[in-house]
Amino acid sequence: MKITAQDLAHFDQTYRTHLVNSLAGFKSANLIGTIDLQGATNLAIVSSVFHLGANPPLMGMIMRPHRVPRHTLENIQQTKCYTINHVNADIYQQAHHTSARYPKSQSEFAAASLTPQFRGQMLAPYVEQSRLQIGMELVSTQTLAVNDTELVIGKVIEIHVPESAIASDGFIDIAQLNSVAVSGLDSYHTTQSLGREPYAKPRPELST
Amino acid sequence: MKITAQDLAHFDQTYRTHLVNSLAGFKSANLIGTIDLQGATNLAIVSSVFHLGANPPLMGMIMRPHRVPRHTLENIQQTKCYTINHVNADIYQQAHHTSARYPKSQSEFAAASLTPQFRGQMLAPYVEQSRLQIGMELVSTQTLAVNDTELVIGKVIEIHVPESAIASDGFIDIAQLNSVAVSGLDSYHTTQSLGREPYAKPRPELST
Repeated sequence: MKITAQDLAHFDQTYRTHLVNSLAGFKSANLIGTIDLQGATNLAIVSSVFHLGANPPLMGMIMRPHRVPRHTLENIQQTKCYTINHVNADIYQQAHHTSARYPKSQSEFAAASLTPQFRGQMLAPYVEQSRLQIGMELVSTQTLAVNDTELVIGKVIEIHVPESAIASDGFIDIAQLNSVAVSGLDSYHTTQSLGREPYAKPRPELST
Repeated sequence: MKITAQDLAHFDQTYRTHLVNSLAGFKSANLIGTIDLQGATNLAIVSSVFHLGANPPLMGMIMRPHRVPRHTLENIQQTKCYTINHVNADIYQQAHHTSARYPKSQSEFAAASLTPQFRGQMLAPYVEQSRLQIGMELVSTQTLAVNDTELVIGKVIEIHVPESAIASDGFIDIAQLNSVAVSGLDSYHTTQSLGREPYAKPRPELST
């Protein structure tokens, strides 16, 4: 069927939100760990973390300032750091629960029965139950004029990962770590590998 | 094991690229269809498409202007439109092949044995073999100062999707459409649903 922009505008809000959130495809599921200057921790699930560059190693994420992860953004701006923790199949329900709207005084770590872990040189807490943890230093935040969302860009400072998950060429087998994928707002998925494709080269007969 | 920013800086380029590209988690796999003002079509696989907002319906993607999808960016800037087409398990190898560096005169549709489909009000071609096709209107492009990548933001103009894949609340079951997820640069995955989680509400005993 065909759905037009006019149709989208006339759908009720919940229907539109579910539908449009399904369009991008499978998304990463990450828990963002932060702390404020008074030492209060915060944890928020985010499906918008994306790769931005390998050298320097940069990642971006989109935050909705007027929605749930507001405390996360405030903490990142205060302390200039945060952690990114892969959600795996053992903790996806706990991870999803961090999207509930708790007051700032209530840490989502405790509410979701997840354990803050302080390690390496990061001020912000990692999630102990995560098997791929990334320590990030804030590079910049900018408000996107188009809809007032916030683009947060950070630099990778340290990575904690089981050595056995790293292939000889640097590829990390995140399926082996049981990392999950998200679709829409609330659907979680494990994955099954179809394989790795070789570096694509033009067919000689077509490249002249 | 712990990998630091210093380690990353000293790894060889291929190793670092594979490793850092694995960090974000599972990514969407989409084919971006474009056309230039002379009618030459172009197709590029992109794993950086992300949801930006539901109302208005907006999606973002990151392009590396000095890499393969340069023709894609030029075409989008010329025609102000593009299509986003989910890669499914039947075509992931053909989709991956579009990352080969062909000259502008060679359409990646033909090189990858995929079929351009002109439908709806889109000037840009869809991929006939894709089961979720999204017609986009360019809203803005901006160069991110941090590493000269390009952030492309577009608005959803039309969606082509089998009605049977849409749940009663608007959620699109992209696993049913056999859409794939990507990890790293070259690893493709089908998915198995763990289920949908209910909207998260604070536990009463913790929310005061």
